[in-house]
Amino acid sequence: MASRRSIGASGPFLKPPPTELVATSAPPCVRGRAVSGRAFHSGTSTPAPTQPVPPGPDDAAVTPSAALPELDKEALAALERVGKGWKGCLPPREHWEEALPIDRHIEFADPMVSRTGRFAEIRGTHPSSDGGGEIEEIEATAKAGEPSSPARRTLRSAARVLIGPPLRSTALAQERMGRLLALAVLSPDALSSVAYGPEAMLAVLLLAGSGELKLSLPIGAALAVLMLSVGLGYRQVINAYPHGGGSYIIASDSLGARWGLIAGAGLILDYVLTVAVSVASGVEAVTSAIPSMYSDRVLVGLLVIFLLAAGNLRGVRDAGALFAAPTYLFVAAIALIVVTGLVKAASHDFTPTTPHPYHPPVEALGVLLVLRAFSSGATAMTGIEVISNAVPVFRPPEAKHARQTLTAMLALLISMFAGVVLVAHFTGAQPGGQETLLSRIARDTVGSGTAYGFVQFATTVVLLVAANSAFNGFPRLLYFMARDSYVPRLFLRLGDRLAFSNGILVLAVPSAIIFAAFDGKTAPLIPLFAIGVFIAFTLAQAGMVARWRRVRGRGWRAGLATNLLGAVLSAAVVVIAAITKFTEGAWLVVVLVPLIVLVCERIHGHYEMARRALTPRAAESSHRLLPSSVAGPDAPLPATSRHAELQDTPIEVHNFTIVPVAVFDLAALRALAYAASLGQPVLALHVSPTGDESERFRREWEAWGNHLPLEIIVSPFRATVAPLTYYVAALHRQRPDLTMTLVVPEIVVAKPWQRILHSHTAARLRRALRPYEGIVVATVPFHLPP
Amino acid sequence: MASRRSIGASGPFLKPPPTELVATSAPPCVRGRAVSGRAFHSGTSTPAPTQPVPPGPDDAAVTPSAALPELDKEALAALERVGKGWKGCLPPREHWEEALPIDRHIEFADPMVSRTGRFAEIRGTHPSSDGGGEIEEIEATAKAGEPSSPARRTLRSAARVLIGPPLRSTALAQERMGRLLALAVLSPDALSSVAYGPEAMLAVLLLAGSGELKLSLPIGAALAVLMLSVGLGYRQVINAYPHGGGSYIIASDSLGARWGLIAGAGLILDYVLTVAVSVASGVEAVTSAIPSMYSDRVLVGLLVIFLLAAGNLRGVRDAGALFAAPTYLFVAAIALIVVTGLVKAASHDFTPTTPHPYHPPVEALGVLLVLRAFSSGATAMTGIEVISNAVPVFRPPEAKHARQTLTAMLALLISMFAGVVLVAHFTGAQPGGQETLLSRIARDTVGSGTAYGFVQFATTVVLLVAANSAFNGFPRLLYFMARDSYVPRLFLRLGDRLAFSNGILVLAVPSAIIFAAFDGKTAPLIPLFAIGVFIAFTLAQAGMVARWRRVRGRGWRAGLATNLLGAVLSAAVVVIAAITKFTEGAWLVVVLVPLIVLVCERIHGHYEMARRALTPRAAESSHRLLPSSVAGPDAPLPATSRHAELQDTPIEVHNFTIVPVAVFDLAALRALAYAASLGQPVLALHVSPTGDESERFRREWEAWGNHLPLEIIVSPFRATVAPLTYYVAALHRQRPDLTMTLVVPEIVVAKPWQRILHSHTAARLRRALRPYEGIVVATVPFHLPP
Repeated sequence: MASRRSIGASGPFLKPPPTELVATSAPPCVRGRAVSGRAFHSGTSTPAPTQPVPPGPDDAAVTPSAALPELDKEALAALERVGKGWKGCLPPREHWEEALPIDRHIEFADPMVSRTGRFAEIRGTHPSSDGGGEIEEIEATAKAGEPSSPARRTLRSAARVLIGPPLRSTALAQERMGRLLALAVLSPDALSSVAYGPEAMLAVLLLAGSGELKLSLPIGAALAVLMLSVGLGYRQVINAYPHGGGSYIIASDSLGARWGLIAGAGLILDYVLTVAVSVASGVEAVTSAIPSMYSDRVLVGLLVIFLLAAGNLRGVRDAGALFAAPTYLFVAAIALIVVTGLVKAASHDFTPTTPHPYHPPVEALGVLLVLRAFSSGATAMTGIEVISNAVPVFRPPEAKHARQTLTAMLALLISMFAGVVLVAHFTGAQPGGQETLLSRIARDTVGSGTAYGFVQFATTVVLLVAANSAFNGFPRLLYFMARDSYVPRLFLRLGDRLAFSNGILVLAVPSAIIFAAFDGKTAPLIPLFAIGVFIAFTLAQAGMVARWRRVRGRGWRAGLATNLLGAVLSAAVVVIAAITKFTEGAWLVVVLVPLIVLVCERIHGHYEMARRALTPRAAESSHRLLPSSVAGPDAPLPATSRHAELQDTPIEVHNFTIVPVAVFDLAALRALAYAASLGQPVLALHVSPTGDESERFRREWEAWGNHLPLEIIVSPFRATVAPLTYYVAALHRQRPDLTMTLVVPEIVVAKPWQRILHSHTAARLRRALRPYEGIVVATVPFHLPP
Repeated sequence: MASRRSIGASGPFLKPPPTELVATSAPPCVRGRAVSGRAFHSGTSTPAPTQPVPPGPDDAAVTPSAALPELDKEALAALERVGKGWKGCLPPREHWEEALPIDRHIEFADPMVSRTGRFAEIRGTHPSSDGGGEIEEIEATAKAGEPSSPARRTLRSAARVLIGPPLRSTALAQERMGRLLALAVLSPDALSSVAYGPEAMLAVLLLAGSGELKLSLPIGAALAVLMLSVGLGYRQVINAYPHGGGSYIIASDSLGARWGLIAGAGLILDYVLTVAVSVASGVEAVTSAIPSMYSDRVLVGLLVIFLLAAGNLRGVRDAGALFAAPTYLFVAAIALIVVTGLVKAASHDFTPTTPHPYHPPVEALGVLLVLRAFSSGATAMTGIEVISNAVPVFRPPEAKHARQTLTAMLALLISMFAGVVLVAHFTGAQPGGQETLLSRIARDTVGSGTAYGFVQFATTVVLLVAANSAFNGFPRLLYFMARDSYVPRLFLRLGDRLAFSNGILVLAVPSAIIFAAFDGKTAPLIPLFAIGVFIAFTLAQAGMVARWRRVRGRGWRAGLATNLLGAVLSAAVVVIAAITKFTEGAWLVVVLVPLIVLVCERIHGHYEMARRALTPRAAESSHRLLPSSVAGPDAPLPATSRHAELQDTPIEVHNFTIVPVAVFDLAALRALAYAASLGQPVLALHVSPTGDESERFRREWEAWGNHLPLEIIVSPFRATVAPLTYYVAALHRQRPDLTMTLVVPEIVVAKPWQRILHSHTAARLRRALRPYEGIVVATVPFHLPP
């Protein structure tokens, strides 16, 4: 142990290659590209394929390691070749292993080494396959993610009450749902639409006068057909994508990436609007029963969105268990109204009540108005696709369970929608005012007593749970889009409760803003709502059509016909909604969808470029062709550097250390000692505001012994960081092949308020030197006592 | 050149000491403390003196190098001893010089090396005194401080129009003022008080009814006596502090640091309020003439404060030239009113006009009311100390010129104040309403024509220039306080126009806030105003008294008497103002002054501690006694490190390199190559979310060749930075003497928006590891093409 410690103690443990050899000829170890010259040298003329491997059937699964992409075979081979370049210029691996000044067998249970439980524990020792040493694994405990300061730990504990304790990655498979639970969790989005869809349709018809409300029956029937055909279409989707799909994946897979993106953009808007509309409608259900709360609706809605986000951060199953009951309550409530309403209507021989008061027409009844009513009523279908998006959350066999659940939901949706439209017709209920249509129907059928209260309560909670449904689907969509590099990778990250924390937060904020911006009202949100959803429907069905034509499995003709009908009808809704509601808000969606597509494509372009630049094979082809020295338009010096070509193996790294010294204090001395201890050439730099000060500094330098080369820059205009940066940049231009390490002393204070008392030269230098390649900034901390 | 380049090219150029020697016994070079053992080993028992050297006479001068404190003799000696520790364990200096892979004679004019003009130029080559090499100096040009991006350069160019081109440090001495210019620049604060002081006094008297306004004559006389005595007191100050003083320096010097701080706190409040009151009163002068502007006064005032700040950022002289005329205009305007008023009064045999309309008394006339009127009137004296604060801006001989200027200002102030009070008395003008008293007097004496317009214009501009006076004095005060470490050091920095940019900005913001908070009105600000000023007056005069008793120079008895009178009268005003106006706002000042003192003392405590910890002598005494490993309450591990003791010389630095690798890409490979090239022991660390991923990573690692030791941490709760941090912390606990260098690959993107597409592990690691001593974080950039 003693000898091991001291090997690395006083200087580099590696012997430098014989000087004469290095100075005059090629290095003794050969670079990777020379060893296997063919593949590498031809790399520039035959660029490596840039498309990622097409997704296999398992690609719709969610895994925490998606954030760490695997290297493909070609990259592995390239890595191997680069690795050969390391041989010979390095001591053998055992040498490195022996040189380690630390004992790798850390006793983590020892409180002297790490506070018990907080730290990692050794899981086991695996001999490595080449026998050249042992590779160990250590497992972090749940506490390793905890903040270290007591204040923040308290805060985190408080958050844990809302969010729950962290879950292991392996718990992912267990966080699945049975059919009844899944129906409750995944269908509220669709079912709850019954609370506002019929009202939206009637509100448009009312423009033609109360007398034309009877048109709700044929339009409602058309909508039921639409629901059935789109729903059956999605049933085919589950068959075709048993590992989970949804419009984005289907469209990407069958129609191409851009169509997939358009579907994704539509869905993104749909999810955001689902939350806003559902919360608005849910709050309206409350204020219909308690009109005095009407003025507080925005505040109440925002609170609800906050609570939904917090609940979902707890993870899928907990959220499901929490939100299962309301769906069934709502089904019961609608059944109660519809049955009572129909029984009452039967007692009047199904003669509809004349709507009262009579609203005179303000618009002529025409095709456009009917189509507008149709597309407004179509909002009752939103959420029909959630189940096919979320197949992976079902217990195995996922596809079968999902299909059964979707069928059940479809039956419920159509009968509830039809029932509400019928009862509205028979009771003569009209929309308008601060009370919702459903509330009026309920009063007309079950009276204003306990039963009414139950209906309103069930409506409210199911709408809130519908918003919750979006919190399940949206992060999953972003996960798939992030895996395909269309949105930032941070949406790949599972939170420590296995929920997609980032996606949940990104959904909550825009929907809260939209909700507040539309003053917490449902009606003005409806025109924005339908387009995004039906774009996704159309593309999913069209994708299925393309797939049927390609795959032609059993029953492909019937399947194709189903999906084609769904696609045509959905597309019709998109066109109708976009035209008839353009000025009422649909224009926003028409603008946003291509904008989102554009942004996603730019992000994708960046990630593709980054992947090419970062994978080993790319290093030998595309990357080396690019201008390499300086990044971005901010770059003070244009690129001529050969730096990027010379850094794959240690022999290619030519080190040079620069130490900026402002005041000759212990922090500077420590940085100088550190720099000198690395055993590389060192140059100290001092920036002085006046000639006097530079003389003074030189005296101090010589008192110390003038051990290292020093350069003084007089900066009569008192700038410090800029002259340093430009001087280093000039050196960089002179020798772009050098890796320059700036060793910067950094004062570390004990308390945050003390930070403004010190200059932050290290951080400013790091920022200023970021554009230059091959400049490493190392900060040597000097801790002040508290 | 070829051989020089390659010396540092392939690895460390320093030969490691013979291995057997290092491994088993003491290093071949001896530590500094062993060479000169006595001084160092006794260091812990005899701590070095902690008080800074008392300021010499030249210490009141402003110099740009104050930010870089000089090492005293003891520190130099300590440095020398530490330096001896470097001898022997390092190759001789020529070796380092020869090893430099760069050519130090950079041709900066060569556009291939640096864009012409933007960079530094070589000023000369000085052989160093020990003959051991050459020390060069390079001078940065004005362009070195410019931002590099075109957009920011355009912005800077626009700012230059307001601020002016940068000035050299050596231009500081030339930025001085003659007496007439200095009177114009430094006296408006005092003279302009005539615009609101008499009104503030009369407003209090009016509470006792219009009939008691005649009391303004005796109170005004008392105030004139007060002005004379305080003014003469400050004249003594200039004699005693020919290099510039002011209440802060005098009180610190003669009464002790805490009294100085109290004076400083009073002055800080005074400066902020001067800006707010002067701007408010100046805007009121305008709205008196143009009542329709009354509702926009806050906006106008804020604009004025912004313009003043911008003007002052241009630097002292330009600001002076810009603002010289208004003072003389105002003197002329007051002279016009007073002479006309007195002539008119003479035509009535000096019979005062009865005030009309008659205001009945709302408060009984009593001692308190009279005292309140007195202390309100005393606001007419604010700014009397500005000249003695700013002696260094006078052309040499500074003291004499300052004295003459102060005398002239005093004469002007007293006669203008007395004149306005007299004329107000004779014309029967009363305060109140939206029109200022001065405006009413002007209308009564010179009518509402051109002459009236001239008076209002002159009043307005002189008040704005008075606010400007505070912009001259305040940054200087902060400079002196920063030099004594009572406020953050950033107030030492001269802007590139030689103005104290930070101080100017810090004055502008609070005064703008106060101005807006008080709705742009003068009257409610008056009660806050007097106390701070008179605290400073009292302490300055008291300090002079103490000084006279100590120094006893020529005429010390007369001087002492003058200052004693000034001190007693000023103290009386402080007490009167604090008592009579406590509830009207004075309580705020009574609270703020001790608060500012407290904050300043905490800042001072921190700087003193930092100085002790950072100067070489301290390293051998106080610093080594302090707990050294971990800073602050956030620290995850308590301190047991011996690290701080072992880092003054290269031989004491025991290096160990850790490379966190997330994905095995070229960025990671580059970081590994860099780490290996340093020739120190290396350990690679990988954090994996699942066992599968860790297997995959291991395969990649072995494909590469398994060249370096690897440790894998499985983090089933998906945290990355925390397990890394805790693992490194555990290693740190095991071997606190090691200097661990974390070599972190960092993706650098070309455009700012791309930043959110990548994780910022390097920055997060740096933050997380900041509490640990001896952990160097080096970021190896990998630049993505744009």
